[in-house]
Amino acid sequence: MATMRSTTEHWEEFYATHLPPSDFEDNRTLLKEFCKRHNKGNTRIVLITSGGTTVPLEHNTVRFVDNFSGGTRGAASAEYFLEHNYAVIYMHRLKSMEPFTRHFSGQTFLDMLELNERGPNTTITVKPDSVDVLAPVLASYKSAHDSGSILYVNFTTVSDYFWLLRAACECLTDCGPRALLYLAAAVSDFYIPSSQIPIHKIQSHTGVPNIQLQLAPKMLAPLVSLWIPHAFVVSFKLETDENILISKARAALSKYKHTLVIGNLLQTRRTRVVFVTPTSSSEVTLTREQILNGMEIEDNIVSNVVSHHTDFIKSQHY
Amino acid sequence: MATMRSTTEHWEEFYATHLPPSDFEDNRTLLKEFCKRHNKGNTRIVLITSGGTTVPLEHNTVRFVDNFSGGTRGAASAEYFLEHNYAVIYMHRLKSMEPFTRHFSGQTFLDMLELNERGPNTTITVKPDSVDVLAPVLASYKSAHDSGSILYVNFTTVSDYFWLLRAACECLTDCGPRALLYLAAAVSDFYIPSSQIPIHKIQSHTGVPNIQLQLAPKMLAPLVSLWIPHAFVVSFKLETDENILISKARAALSKYKHTLVIGNLLQTRRTRVVFVTPTSSSEVTLTREQILNGMEIEDNIVSNVVSHHTDFIKSQHY
Repeated sequence: MATMRSTTEHWEEFYATHLPPSDFEDNRTLLKEFCKRHNKGNTRIVLITSGGTTVPLEHNTVRFVDNFSGGTRGAASAEYFLEHNYAVIYMHRLKSMEPFTRHFSGQTFLDMLELNERGPNTTITVKPDSVDVLAPVLASYKSAHDSGSILYVNFTTVSDYFWLLRAACECLTDCGPRALLYLAAAVSDFYIPSSQIPIHKIQSHTGVPNIQLQLAPKMLAPLVSLWIPHAFVVSFKLETDENILISKARAALSKYKHTLVIGNLLQTRRTRVVFVTPTSSSEVTLTREQILNGMEIEDNIVSNVVSHHTDFIKSQHY
Repeated sequence: MATMRSTTEHWEEFYATHLPPSDFEDNRTLLKEFCKRHNKGNTRIVLITSGGTTVPLEHNTVRFVDNFSGGTRGAASAEYFLEHNYAVIYMHRLKSMEPFTRHFSGQTFLDMLELNERGPNTTITVKPDSVDVLAPVLASYKSAHDSGSILYVNFTTVSDYFWLLRAACECLTDCGPRALLYLAAAVSDFYIPSSQIPIHKIQSHTGVPNIQLQLAPKMLAPLVSLWIPHAFVVSFKLETDENILISKARAALSKYKHTLVIGNLLQTRRTRVVFVTPTSSSEVTLTREQILNGMEIEDNIVSNVVSHHTDFIKSQHY
């Protein structure tokens, strides 16, 4: 119990000593409206967190510690949740991958276009052989946006993330077990408290900086026990060492009392994950044939999560 | 001289103890071919470096220290150098901003498109009101690519960057004073030598990591004195404290003996820079009117750099 109290104090202290990001109230309003609008009938809402968080080393941020994550898993999963008729809150690192646009990064977009210059009657069309690829994505994009089924909110620092996460949970809690939290963001385990960050860029001539990180509060603890106790909560665990993956997933479940951990290894994360619950573990993989057919593992992951979520809702007799 | 020798040892030691990135030979071949093809007549070639570098904290990289830089300045400048008929090597951080595509980030691209679903005769066109914006960019993009005037090479870590930078200089050195180095990348002053990086993800339960950075070698020293002694070299200095900007720029010029430092403050970098030479300093700014007209400061910066470069070429009697 002593440990538990100390953890509690840790997260409370974080909110007491760190200011919310400047666009926090705007985002909270958007979250409230979105949840209110979709909290009707049997609509399920998923909060997807995606991308890495930064730990600034200076207040005027030039340098920061970052976590590896392009946001690929979260962005792909968002599309599949929409296909399963979930309303989607896509809470992502600014400039990380986003659903729909992820298919056309960099120059692929410009390379698809044909310019027909005729002065004031100039037109630009998508080349016929690119239409096949683009049309279904564009149709899904327009359908999701026209129906208001997706809300984008973004963060950069780990502090931004913590503020947004709590706000989203508070807005979702009325949805009971129909709320699904799909916590795919790579959140830093470490941070530097605001009061200890220098204002200006660290100067190299004054010597090599010795970066003193502190353990960040584990927000999964208050999230499950206090903020949104009736939701279905899925967390992710990324490791590079196969030998500790399952044991670390089990340890997280026993510590935070949530429902499901999806474990993956950095090296094989595109083709294999492990679903770990308090009582079972099962692999979700792509076969060689599925890989060749261009299938994404998030298609399988989301189908499995949705089916776990369905069982969870039934078990709650809501 | 003792200092000089110690610096020399430092950069040589770096290349002796760090392996080149896995795609290094491919990139070196591309650089060689590009420089050979353009090293004819009076063609000028600019090497633009752009975006930030990372310092990995683990070999299987999950965490890294990053420098702030979206690559905006480099990407915009590349377009203006092409307008001035330079051949452009765009050496940039993977996933940072790129010329041309920078104008259509995220959803703006999908929002410009109109889907006309007619089964097998489905077409996708750019909405008429987006054609005005897109057409000139698309025309410049196609012209640069069709004429082979731009080469993209990318890096992620500071070590990748150092390897590519030296290779690019070695390929460019035959161009004499027609080579322009426009070093806009935000290169880390610090790094962790390869031999001191752990293989697996740092575990939080083993305590808070104490990140021991070391000073990175200053590659500008061998670059100017050894690798490409006849080129026109422009470096950038980003600070957050106005009071030290010019003195730091002068110190760099006197230390590395190159030609021009462009200084800027994080807070005002989109509207004001300072050109610092050994004997002068002058501001390049955008007027309020130019800002309202959507002009970019890189347009002014590049015009000024080109004019300095012209003077430099004349002064070399090449």
